[in-house]
Amino acid sequence: MKSGLNFLVAARRCEIRELEQLLLTSELVRRTAELVHALQKERGLSNLYLGGGDAEFGAQRGKQMGACDAAAERWRSALEQLDIDGASTIGNGARLFSRIAYALQGLGALPLLRERITQRGLPAAESTRGFSRLVAALMGVVFEAADSASDPELSRLLVATFHFMQGKEFTGQERATGAGTFAQGAAEIQQQQLWLHLIESQERCFTVFADFAEPQHIAAWQACLGGGAMAEIERLRRIGCTAPVGSTLDRALSRTWFDACSERMDAMQSVETRLAADLVQRCQEKLQQARADLEQQAMQLKAAQSLAADNPGSAFFDQPAQRRDAPPIGPQLGRSVLDMVQEQSHRLQAMADELASVRATLNERKIVERAKGLLMAHRHLSEEEAHKTLRQTAMGQGKRLVDVAEAVLAMAELLPAPVARR
Amino acid sequence: MKSGLNFLVAARRCEIRELEQLLLTSELVRRTAELVHALQKERGLSNLYLGGGDAEFGAQRGKQMGACDAAAERWRSALEQLDIDGASTIGNGARLFSRIAYALQGLGALPLLRERITQRGLPAAESTRGFSRLVAALMGVVFEAADSASDPELSRLLVATFHFMQGKEFTGQERATGAGTFAQGAAEIQQQQLWLHLIESQERCFTVFADFAEPQHIAAWQACLGGGAMAEIERLRRIGCTAPVGSTLDRALSRTWFDACSERMDAMQSVETRLAADLVQRCQEKLQQARADLEQQAMQLKAAQSLAADNPGSAFFDQPAQRRDAPPIGPQLGRSVLDMVQEQSHRLQAMADELASVRATLNERKIVERAKGLLMAHRHLSEEEAHKTLRQTAMGQGKRLVDVAEAVLAMAELLPAPVARR
Repeated sequence: MKSGLNFLVAARRCEIRELEQLLLTSELVRRTAELVHALQKERGLSNLYLGGGDAEFGAQRGKQMGACDAAAERWRSALEQLDIDGASTIGNGARLFSRIAYALQGLGALPLLRERITQRGLPAAESTRGFSRLVAALMGVVFEAADSASDPELSRLLVATFHFMQGKEFTGQERATGAGTFAQGAAEIQQQQLWLHLIESQERCFTVFADFAEPQHIAAWQACLGGGAMAEIERLRRIGCTAPVGSTLDRALSRTWFDACSERMDAMQSVETRLAADLVQRCQEKLQQARADLEQQAMQLKAAQSLAADNPGSAFFDQPAQRRDAPPIGPQLGRSVLDMVQEQSHRLQAMADELASVRATLNERKIVERAKGLLMAHRHLSEEEAHKTLRQTAMGQGKRLVDVAEAVLAMAELLPAPVARR
Repeated sequence: MKSGLNFLVAARRCEIRELEQLLLTSELVRRTAELVHALQKERGLSNLYLGGGDAEFGAQRGKQMGACDAAAERWRSALEQLDIDGASTIGNGARLFSRIAYALQGLGALPLLRERITQRGLPAAESTRGFSRLVAALMGVVFEAADSASDPELSRLLVATFHFMQGKEFTGQERATGAGTFAQGAAEIQQQQLWLHLIESQERCFTVFADFAEPQHIAAWQACLGGGAMAEIERLRRIGCTAPVGSTLDRALSRTWFDACSERMDAMQSVETRLAADLVQRCQEKLQQARADLEQQAMQLKAAQSLAADNPGSAFFDQPAQRRDAPPIGPQLGRSVLDMVQEQSHRLQAMADELASVRATLNERKIVERAKGLLMAHRHLSEEEAHKTLRQTAMGQGKRLVDVAEAVLAMAELLPAPVARR
C-alpha cells in the first residue's frame, strides 16, 4: 500500500523529471536561436542578391547557406535528444511536437525557395516572406517551449528569451524593409508604414523582455543600444521614414543601412546566446538542487518512517488552519512527515501562483495575435493595419490592448465571413 | 533522423498518454467522491452522538465508520493504480501527489479523532472541524485533478464535478450548523451568520457547476431541488435563521432538520455519482477515439511517406498566411503531410484556447480563496467574515469578486503582520 511518504517522494520526482525535460527543451531553444539567426542573415543576403546583381553577394549568400545548413543540422541533433517515443513528462508535448513537425516541413521546403532565389525567379518581397514564415515556424517552437516550463524562474527566462528573439526577428524584418525602400530609390507610403510598425513591434517585445530578463541580460542589451550602429540606424530611419512620398532616396544607402542593421543584429545575437546559455545552465543547477533535495528528503523520511509514517497523531486536526511561516531550511531529522508534506504543498502552490502570472504574459500575446489574425482575415487588413486598429481602439476607450483583443475575439461570430484577399 | 511525420505521430501519442493518465485520475475522483460522502455522513452521525446520548446514534455511527473504512480502502486502491514511480505524463503530478500525501496524513489521523469522539472527549464543533479538514484535504486532490486535464471537454466535466462536490460539502456543513443551532435550543447570532454564509457558498458552487455541467447533469440536479425535502429544509432554514437572537428554538427540530438534509445529500450523491461515472466513461471514449485517430493517421502517413515526407514542395511558402477552414474529416490518403500537420496544430491550438477559459474559473477560485486566507490571517476574521468583506467591497466598487481578491493579494505586503487568533 502506498503511503503519504511515497507520494511525497513521487511529487519531488515529478519535479525532477519536469526539469530533465526542460533541460532538453532549453537545449532545443538554444539551437533554435542559432538557426533563426543564420536564416535571418540568409534572408538579408538573399535580398541583396535579388536586388543587385553583385557577384560578391552571391558568394556571401552561398557561404551563409552553408552556415544555415550546419545550424539546421545542430537543430536536428537537439531534436534527436527529445524522448518522443517514451512516456516521458513534457509539459505540453502535443503542442510542442506539432510545432516541431511544422518547422520541419518548412526546413524541408527551404531548398526549393533557395533554388528560385538562385534563378532570380521571385521578387525580394516574396523571398522575405518565405524566410519570415520559416522563422515564424521556429519561433512557434520557442513559444511552446516557454509555455511548457513548470518552474517560474525558468519560465521567466524562457519568456524573456522568446520576446528577445521575436524582437530581433522584427529587427531583421526592419532590415529587409529598409533595404528594400532605399534600394527602390523612392519613398512609398505603404513601406514607410510597415517600417514604423516594425520599429514599434520591436519596442513592445523588448519591453516584455526587460520585464522578465535578469539584470545581466538587460545590461548586455543596453550595451547593444549604446553602440555606434544604433546612431546610424536612427539617422537612416529618420531619412527613410520621413521622406515625402514619391521623393527620391539615395540607393547607396541600402548597403549602409544593411551593414548597420547587421552589426546591430550580430550584437543582439550575443545577448540571445547568453540568454540561451544561461537558460541551459540554470536548468542544470535547478536539476542538481532538486536531486540533492530529494536525497536529503529521503534521509528525513527514513528517520520519520520509524515513527509510523501515516499516523501524524492529532497534529493533522490540531494544526492552525492558516499557513504557518515557512519552516527553517536544513536537515531536521526530527521533523514530522506532516510538516514536510505541508511545506512541500506550500512551496508547490507558491510556484504555481508565480508561474500563472508569468504565463499570463504569454497568454496575452496569444490573444492579441489571434485578434489580429481575425481582423486580417475578416476585414482583409495587413498585419500592421490590424495592429493599428486594435491599438487605436484601446487608446480611444482607455483600455489595455489585450482587453480590446479579447473583445474582438468575443464578437468573432458577429463578423462577416472571411473575404479572400485580393 | 526524426522527420516531421515522427513528430506528428509523437504529438498524437502525447495526447493519448495524457488521456490514459486522466482516466486514472478520473477513477480517483470517483473514489474520492465516495469517500467524501461517507465522511460527511460520519461527521453528521458523530455530531448527533456527541450531542444526544442516544444509543441508536452510537450504533449508526459504528456502522458508518465501517462504510467509511471500506470507501477509504477503495480510494487507496485507486491510488495504487497511479504510476508514481514511472516517468509517465501526469498533468501537474507534483501538486497532485503532494495533495494526496496530505490527504493520506489526514486519513492516518482519523482513528485518533474517532477515539476522542467515542469517549466524548471533544465538543461537536471541534469534531465537525476535524472531519471538515479531512474533507478539504480530499477536495484538494479533486481540485488538482481538475487542474491537470488537458482536454477541454473533460476539464469542463472535472470543473463541474469539483464545484458540485464543494457545494455538497457546504450543504454538509450547513447540516451540521443547523443541527447544532437547533440542538442548543436557542438562536445565536454567530451561528446564524455562519448558516447564511453556508447557504450562499452552496449557491455560488452550484452556479459554477451549472455553467460547466452537461444538460443531463443539470437535469439530475434540478430533480434534487424539486423533492419534498427541499421545502422542509427551506422552512427550517427560515425558522433557524430568522429567530430573534436569544429566542428559544425547538430542540426536536434538530433531528427533523438532520433527516431532511441527509435525504437531500443522498439525492445529491446520486448526481455526484453520475458526474464521476460520466467522467470516467467520457475519458474512455476519448481514449478510444484518439487511438483510432492515431491508427488512421498512421495509414495516411504511410501513403504520404512515399512522397518524400519532409519535402512539402513550395506549399509551405505558398499557403495563405490565414488559417483555412477546417479540412473535411475522414480518410484522405491523398492529403499532404503539410495539411495534416497544420490541421493538427489548429486542433491543438483550439483545444488550448478552450482549456484556458475553463481553467480561468479554477484560477479565480484559487485567487478568491487565497485572498480570504490572507484576510483571515491578517485581520483575524472568520472565513465568512472574510468572504463578506470581499463581497461588500466588490459590490461597493462595482467590481467582480475576483478583481477585489486580486487587489487584496497585490497589497499583501502592506498589511500588518499576522496576529495570532485569540
